Amino acid sequence: MDFSFSEEQRLLRESVRTLMDRHAPPDMVARHDRERLYPYELHKAWAEAGLIALPFSEKHGGLGGSVIDMAIVAEEIAYTNADFFMAYAGNVFCGLNIERKGTEEQKAEFLPRLITGDLRMAICISEADAGSDVGAMRTVARKDGDVWRVNGHKLWCTGAGAKNTLLNVYLKTDTTVHHSKGMSLFLIDNDAPGVDMRKLDMLGRGATGTYEIRFDEVAVTPDRIVGGVNGGWDCILAGLQVERITSAAGNCGAARAVVDLAANYARERKQFGRPIGSNQAIAHMLADMRTEVEAARMLMWRAAWKVAQGEEALADISMAKLYSSETYVKVANMGMQIFGAYGYSMEFPMQRHYRDARSATIAAGSSQMLRNLIARSMGLKVQ
Amino acid sequence: MDFSFSEEQRLLRESVRTLMDRHAPPDMVARHDRERLYPYELHKAWAEAGLIALPFSEKHGGLGGSVIDMAIVAEEIAYTNADFFMAYAGNVFCGLNIERKGTEEQKAEFLPRLITGDLRMAICISEADAGSDVGAMRTVARKDGDVWRVNGHKLWCTGAGAKNTLLNVYLKTDTTVHHSKGMSLFLIDNDAPGVDMRKLDMLGRGATGTYEIRFDEVAVTPDRIVGGVNGGWDCILAGLQVERITSAAGNCGAARAVVDLAANYARERKQFGRPIGSNQAIAHMLADMRTEVEAARMLMWRAAWKVAQGEEALADISMAKLYSSETYVKVANMGMQIFGAYGYSMEFPMQRHYRDARSATIAAGSSQMLRNLIARSMGLKVQ
Amino acid sequence: MDFSFSEEQRLLRESVRTLMDRHAPPDMVARHDRERLYPYELHKAWAEAGLIALPFSEKHGGLGGSVIDMAIVAEEIAYTNADFFMAYAGNVFCGLNIERKGTEEQKAEFLPRLITGDLRMAICISEADAGSDVGAMRTVARKDGDVWRVNGHKLWCTGAGAKNTLLNVYLKTDTTVHHSKGMSLFLIDNDAPGVDMRKLDMLGRGATGTYEIRFDEVAVTPDRIVGGVNGGWDCILAGLQVERITSAAGNCGAARAVVDLAANYARERKQFGRPIGSNQAIAHMLADMRTEVEAARMLMWRAAWKVAQGEEALADISMAKLYSSETYVKVANMGMQIFGAYGYSMEFPMQRHYRDARSATIAAGSSQMLRNLIARSMGLKVQ
Amino acid sequence: MDFSFSEEQRLLRESVRTLMDRHAPPDMVARHDRERLYPYELHKAWAEAGLIALPFSEKHGGLGGSVIDMAIVAEEIAYTNADFFMAYAGNVFCGLNIERKGTEEQKAEFLPRLITGDLRMAICISEADAGSDVGAMRTVARKDGDVWRVNGHKLWCTGAGAKNTLLNVYLKTDTTVHHSKGMSLFLIDNDAPGVDMRKLDMLGRGATGTYEIRFDEVAVTPDRIVGGVNGGWDCILAGLQVERITSAAGNCGAARAVVDLAANYARERKQFGRPIGSNQAIAHMLADMRTEVEAARMLMWRAAWKVAQGEEALADISMAKLYSSETYVKVANMGMQIFGAYGYSMEFPMQRHYRDARSATIAAGSSQMLRNLIARSMGLKVQ
Repeated sequence: MDFSFSEEQRLLRESVRTLMDRHAPPDMVARHDRERLYPYELHKAWAEAGLIALPFSEKHGGLGGSVIDMAIVAEEIAYTNADFFMAYAGNVFCGLNIERKGTEEQKAEFLPRLITGDLRMAICISEADAGSDVGAMRTVARKDGDVWRVNGHKLWCTGAGAKNTLLNVYLKTDTTVHHSKGMSLFLIDNDAPGVDMRKLDMLGRGATGTYEIRFDEVAVTPDRIVGGVNGGWDCILAGLQVERITSAAGNCGAARAVVDLAANYARERKQFGRPIGSNQAIAHMLADMRTEVEAARMLMWRAAWKVAQGEEALADISMAKLYSSETYVKVANMGMQIFGAYGYSMEFPMQRHYRDARSATIAAGSSQMLRNLIARSMGLKVQ
Repeated sequence: MDFSFSEEQRLLRESVRTLMDRHAPPDMVARHDRERLYPYELHKAWAEAGLIALPFSEKHGGLGGSVIDMAIVAEEIAYTNADFFMAYAGNVFCGLNIERKGTEEQKAEFLPRLITGDLRMAICISEADAGSDVGAMRTVARKDGDVWRVNGHKLWCTGAGAKNTLLNVYLKTDTTVHHSKGMSLFLIDNDAPGVDMRKLDMLGRGATGTYEIRFDEVAVTPDRIVGGVNGGWDCILAGLQVERITSAAGNCGAARAVVDLAANYARERKQFGRPIGSNQAIAHMLADMRTEVEAARMLMWRAAWKVAQGEEALADISMAKLYSSETYVKVANMGMQIFGAYGYSMEFPMQRHYRDARSATIAAGSSQMLRNLIARSMGLKVQ
Repeated sequence: MDFSFSEEQRLLRESVRTLMDRHAPPDMVARHDRERLYPYELHKAWAEAGLIALPFSEKHGGLGGSVIDMAIVAEEIAYTNADFFMAYAGNVFCGLNIERKGTEEQKAEFLPRLITGDLRMAICISEADAGSDVGAMRTVARKDGDVWRVNGHKLWCTGAGAKNTLLNVYLKTDTTVHHSKGMSLFLIDNDAPGVDMRKLDMLGRGATGTYEIRFDEVAVTPDRIVGGVNGGWDCILAGLQVERITSAAGNCGAARAVVDLAANYARERKQFGRPIGSNQAIAHMLADMRTEVEAARMLMWRAAWKVAQGEEALADISMAKLYSSETYVKVANMGMQIFGAYGYSMEFPMQRHYRDARSATIAAGSSQMLRNLIARSMGLKVQ
Repeated sequence: MDFSFSEEQRLLRESVRTLMDRHAPPDMVARHDRERLYPYELHKAWAEAGLIALPFSEKHGGLGGSVIDMAIVAEEIAYTNADFFMAYAGNVFCGLNIERKGTEEQKAEFLPRLITGDLRMAICISEADAGSDVGAMRTVARKDGDVWRVNGHKLWCTGAGAKNTLLNVYLKTDTTVHHSKGMSLFLIDNDAPGVDMRKLDMLGRGATGTYEIRFDEVAVTPDRIVGGVNGGWDCILAGLQVERITSAAGNCGAARAVVDLAANYARERKQFGRPIGSNQAIAHMLADMRTEVEAARMLMWRAAWKVAQGEEALADISMAKLYSSETYVKVANMGMQIFGAYGYSMEFPMQRHYRDARSATIAAGSSQMLRNLIARSMGLKVQ
């Protein structure tokens, strides 16, 4: 049993911390949030520091980092800003999918550019009537001579509108069979003819951005299908574990930031001649916040470690994602109470957490879906 | 025992409902929220319908309504929009203070114009270091010949920037004594020389608006002091009960709207071929939401009724405000979960509730202050 | 709107309070709990004071009290002891069922003796595999010449073992049809030949007692069938509303007792030289406890009033029962924390509440069943 | 980072599991609980298996086990029964105190007999007015020639009445100074002249037993003072860390048992023709229960590991104890709901957890005291 980071992990963590503190100081974070700007320069810095290369195998230009390494990066980036973490994560998740399921040509074409930061990737999966119910999607591709023609309408596509972004679009190539047998993963440039996208106005996480995308007879050549025609369901499944554990790490980092912000405020802010943190009502709230964030982190590290060991970890990952997301929502809410009117002001960072946190229990597996998964792992046949 | 409204109360309620539905349909609410516009026309409609006149005595041009009547109005306005309720409430609270504590000349000068909607009023009390700790305020007025000169810096002034607004400013006229003996209430036009105000960017409730105001040698004549020099503390105390019970009613109305929105969504939205509300995880959440909102309402009506009866009701009011505000925060949070990604979109109303609700447990007595009051009413000497 | 009791209601309440204080002082309560003794003398006192007569119509020797009156009695009895309330309630619920559904002969035979306290009644409905799922019951009666023969095994029969108790047994008279069409209500003396009962050892509520009963060829004459053969389902439904609203009142009374006990302890108990109630951690817990108990009471009074008005009140009753039972569990748990080690001692009353409360969310409609009902009243088709 | 047990730890865990399953099957647990019998034979089995020897240094006849080893034992014993864990823990905590603070003669005299199970030890610290406020204790010892004379009244002494038990009594040897300078630790046989003890009737944990003890002129020779005259405060502090982390492990084990019991019941129990665990209301409850228990365990293992590493771990231990105890209370409460009426029956084990759990947040540092400690570790000056 060993709860410590290795020397390499410690160095990785410190370097990400340093990078984030330098490239994303509070005013930069606030400005990107307020003006909803994609963090292009930060993305470049990540690439240069090797953070995008990190989880890829050395064969494809990566650094061969483990899931634990990814969790370290996720926690530190999200400590600064959960929104920026979305930008980082989207790229890496898509790239890993290609590494796992793509052809050698696809890997050679896309991974080096992804790793250098010249290419971005974004996932397109949800639709108006297909949220948790992925199989209800109606975006389709039909064979049209040498190419496929894509038509449909995707929603909630994170980061899809940044420059040089390759969309990873899940759609149906066969609508006559069960969705697990008729879905495919297509790679489509976000400025390809027939792609029309609109940035959505969302409660939070506006820097990375959330998009709706209409595909109108978009032509895709067969070499841009990952995992083969009708092989999309496998691509989804293969990526879920890493996506959820890394999301959990992001939630932990952001929740930890909330505790630090709130504790600091409670130490500094005086009312009735004493710091508000000297009141048990505030102090005990902070004690609970810290305790639950540490609990979330331990669940998360355990799950990450299990994945890194190659162990089956579906329940562990689900618990880590569930608990960390609920904790982020909860502590952000408590942080607002501690900050009082200052928390309600857009000039202070707590309201950003309150907004950003609220997507954590919805995206990457809603809390309800995760409870279903956990219950099933306990032998319960949930309806 | 009788939990029903009288015929007059039923009619009042219906008329407010009709007025709000006509003058503040969903797109109008969304636009005022998004563009942060003061609801001038709605305010006019309230005045014309007699809603501002409602709580004032007939002697001063009012309709002699009870606290229960005010709660009815509050609940219905806030059902449409908690932010608009702030605009309504600010005017009425200030006016009632003048009716209770002002001179006959002040009542004659200000109340008729307030009632017709030609004049607005806004309270200025908090400062950077004086939130719950009102006594720490540092805005002062000093005698300068025939006038007083006001200097200071107020924060979180709701609705202070609307046209034709008379600020109700609490400040110190004697800094050498305990604040309960050295505070006064001054009436200052919001466009008087030396008044400099800035609309603050807040998480929610942006239509009515929150302002910071700097007073620089602002001249005030003695006839604009309410309740006499050093009589400000009494003015604060006199108004607290009505402010809190009406805030509680507003919270109940807004929370009820959340339940209706979420239940409606759960009935309509389908995933996996059935309405999401057929899942126990969603259905039971809604059952709890409705139960707690009804509980909040009952606490609120009881407190309002007690006040209307002239009974001592400090604990009842505190419980009603505490519970209703916590409930609004809680159901808005659950409503977001039920709406999923649609809740996170600024094009749907749930996110507005999530933002608006968050000030409910902070303003008009934070939950922590209220718990102190309730505990004291139980004979506990809370530190 | 009127939240006050009428003069008669006030007097009723005071008289029940006085009766309970006299006949059930703390040491009597503790002894009956510890030694699991049925409160025969208290039952006699209720009868003499007219409390059993209260809800029955004057035609049958009753006092014509309303559901509000019953709730008043329930709250005050349960304030002293939730267990004793079970003894009171069982009698009254069964009697009211006979008044509603019985023949004139049945009413004439049983109600007068019930009202004088010479006869007791207890309901027998649950079985090992039929809890919330009433229809799964397997106790049956078959026609055998002039009599019916009852065979089966009932569980969790409250108060069934007291002297002179007439069991109100739900069973199947037709197993070939849906349970709503094949169930009947039989009246069987608890000392009839073939009735074998065993007092079960339960966590709480041991005075009234919980029994398992085996029926072996028990003979029942047709005049002891209430509501006609196969009319049992209607009897169940007819009584549910009153049972649940009265249970809610009982929960409120018991929960109120917890708050009073805990607040009193927090005022008296000193640690570190001051009452423990001067700590915010304790004081705020008590403020929340009181607030939630008052909220529960308001929901309960509203539901009782609606029933008394003859209004449809299924959702209101369900909310009142759900919230009051969850509140009793919650405050009993908090009360234990406030009492510390003294709460854990059987020599102090808080542990009794902790034990008694725990059946409140299970019996008379589990919280899960009630949430289903509430959700359905909101138009949700819960599975 | 490594979340796995070493081979030795795995074997230790399995052997404790096997021992407990053999010596403490469910009916033995139920009987000792019901009849409040000290588990003498189980204690013997622990001794023979080396479990008492485990944490002591080899020099004193121990096995040199780490805090992690102790936590493993604690979790497995408490998985069977939290009450038996109290018996185990009391012995070990007292013995470790003697090993840390005692003279060589004391170690030689007492530790070998403790390790073989021939001697038991129990701590006596609380008094009627000295709970969390240890310093308020009034039990005193005064010098009387060659001996000390002890007078006083102790409460809540766990396991003090078992045969051959040496009481570890904290008392004041100097009442004129601050308690941290005037307290001592005396060793007194529980059958010494002048020692009068009474087994208290408590809500749970009745096998190990809780006692009140009166000391009337009890003679103690100077060689039975541990840590020197007035050195008692150091003894308390030295033992706290291990006591709390091991208690946390016990809570985790017992809470894990609750989840297993409840999940098993939800899989087996059918209502409406399907297992109750197929309802989301039950399944999601179980998912949350499991998640929180796993979170508690991770916090606990991290704290144990830190202590084993020799790192400062006050905050970690406090968080582990706080969270695990609150979790045990919470899951036991949920477990009761899942078991329904069967949970309320003393013939099923869930009610034992509901009773046993309730002392977890009170003993060994109440949740309120622990929140104070955690808050202070965050730089908050809690009042």
